[in-house]
Amino acid sequence: MKLVTYRDSAAGEGRLGVVVDGQVVDVEWLGEAAGEALPDSMLDLIDMGPDALAAITRALDATNAARPAGLAVPEENVRLLAPIPRPRKNIFGIGLNYVEHVAESAKSLDTSKELPKEPVVFSKPPTSVIASGEGIQHNAAMTQQLDWEVELAVIIGKRATRIAKDNAMSHVFGYSVINDVSARDNRRAGQWIFSKGQDTFCPFGPAIITADDVPDPHNLDLWLTKNGVEKQRSNTRHLLFDIPTLIADISSGITLEPGDIIATGTPAGVGAGRDPQEWMWPGDVIECGVDGIGVLRNPVVKIGD
Amino acid sequence: MKLVTYRDSAAGEGRLGVVVDGQVVDVEWLGEAAGEALPDSMLDLIDMGPDALAAITRALDATNAARPAGLAVPEENVRLLAPIPRPRKNIFGIGLNYVEHVAESAKSLDTSKELPKEPVVFSKPPTSVIASGEGIQHNAAMTQQLDWEVELAVIIGKRATRIAKDNAMSHVFGYSVINDVSARDNRRAGQWIFSKGQDTFCPFGPAIITADDVPDPHNLDLWLTKNGVEKQRSNTRHLLFDIPTLIADISSGITLEPGDIIATGTPAGVGAGRDPQEWMWPGDVIECGVDGIGVLRNPVVKIGD
Repeated sequence: MKLVTYRDSAAGEGRLGVVVDGQVVDVEWLGEAAGEALPDSMLDLIDMGPDALAAITRALDATNAARPAGLAVPEENVRLLAPIPRPRKNIFGIGLNYVEHVAESAKSLDTSKELPKEPVVFSKPPTSVIASGEGIQHNAAMTQQLDWEVELAVIIGKRATRIAKDNAMSHVFGYSVINDVSARDNRRAGQWIFSKGQDTFCPFGPAIITADDVPDPHNLDLWLTKNGVEKQRSNTRHLLFDIPTLIADISSGITLEPGDIIATGTPAGVGAGRDPQEWMWPGDVIECGVDGIGVLRNPVVKIGD
Repeated sequence: MKLVTYRDSAAGEGRLGVVVDGQVVDVEWLGEAAGEALPDSMLDLIDMGPDALAAITRALDATNAARPAGLAVPEENVRLLAPIPRPRKNIFGIGLNYVEHVAESAKSLDTSKELPKEPVVFSKPPTSVIASGEGIQHNAAMTQQLDWEVELAVIIGKRATRIAKDNAMSHVFGYSVINDVSARDNRRAGQWIFSKGQDTFCPFGPAIITADDVPDPHNLDLWLTKNGVEKQRSNTRHLLFDIPTLIADISSGITLEPGDIIATGTPAGVGAGRDPQEWMWPGDVIECGVDGIGVLRNPVVKIGD
């Protein structure tokens, strides 16, 4: 199932939609048409647990012959928000989680060339999230080294602590795409939240594909283009720490909650690792794709003087 | 004004209280008695802006002669929650912000002995917050190096980005105390969120003292005892980066929101820096005090096998 959060009017809050045959069907209104109690937001849906997805399917089937006018809008006509516009806690990022990126990072940044023995966990605040289509802010007073990182994002479905690796995949609600934007020259004594956590530094979306529609999340091509030119290409089978390991590891100390987001790390090809180095500048357009999940597209926009 | 979040019954949610003469007065019910619209939670209060504090004062004055029975409960009879039980985003921590702590940290941990040129910003997730009185979890399967850090906490009052230093203090709602608990042996390639962000690693409280009642937040003694023995003592005048600098710095890239929390850093005397090193173990009781703000008291409790 492909789920989005969309704005139904200029002033409106985000609403939950399910995408069927290129149409965004409003989930709450679909429920009203079909006699099912369905939620109006992604977090409420995740909180309802797995039965909620079955209820959406029933409602779609029940209204298949004739959906009331206005219930469905062509996908290209809606303004998307991030699938979870305001996460409940920081987004968990994983550093150095593809072998070749460990090597390029050690050459160009201050990280070790040894493969990490445990996941390198950092965080991005909820205020850093933007939707596909929104602008990544470039403030020349702050950075001349704004960089890109395409990543598979894992959306957690259940509240739990100390999740066993064997059971971890049952805690996944779905998948999306994140561009883990970094201002490389804004790192602080090795800590990454400031360089990676600024406003607009977490493009997220365009949609969440539910776990049942992703047969093997460890075999997905992912890629990134800048102005149409490919800069990153790899496959999630090259993750150093796979999804169950990340979920077990983070939850060994930190309670994961419905709607929590783990950005699983980026492969080689970031700007800092290129020769010569390349950065993002106002006017650039960055596309991040994970095949089978979606394409996240963001322009870079100038802010400040 | 001294504000708390308290639980009025075993099953109840947290409610906002104002402490007057050793009595916790429920703010929403006070408003009902006085004909003022007052909120039932700390975040709602902060969102209402400065007029809300004036409204509480009016309501207290109006009911001074005779407050309805049940409106006020002796402070020692209420169960406190953290002043903001669920922050809206990660707590911002500041590493290495007192000179002597920079020196002890360089000796015992992996940090530089040079004074940082910019604030070392890291984060703790909202799930790490506990109240005064609640247990700091010690899981021997995870750590043998659980450490303490007393800190002055600054509570932000207004939503803003790129706050000027000159104007920064007008963005402070109030002050509290945080124990920035760390599992020193859980650091990940220099990133601190996992070692500092685990469940219960952010004791916070007991109260918020509003900014108007703290004449000089840069001249407050702060101290920490373990089982009654003093381990840390300093004064906030020794902060390397003062409060306006921290607010201006973080907000230069990250939007600060009402109720956001900045833990301003700890002075010398942490367990890792002692000779021999000392750690927290189940059964220990840690008290963190900032004079004029309050005393945060937490036992260390065993979890796991």
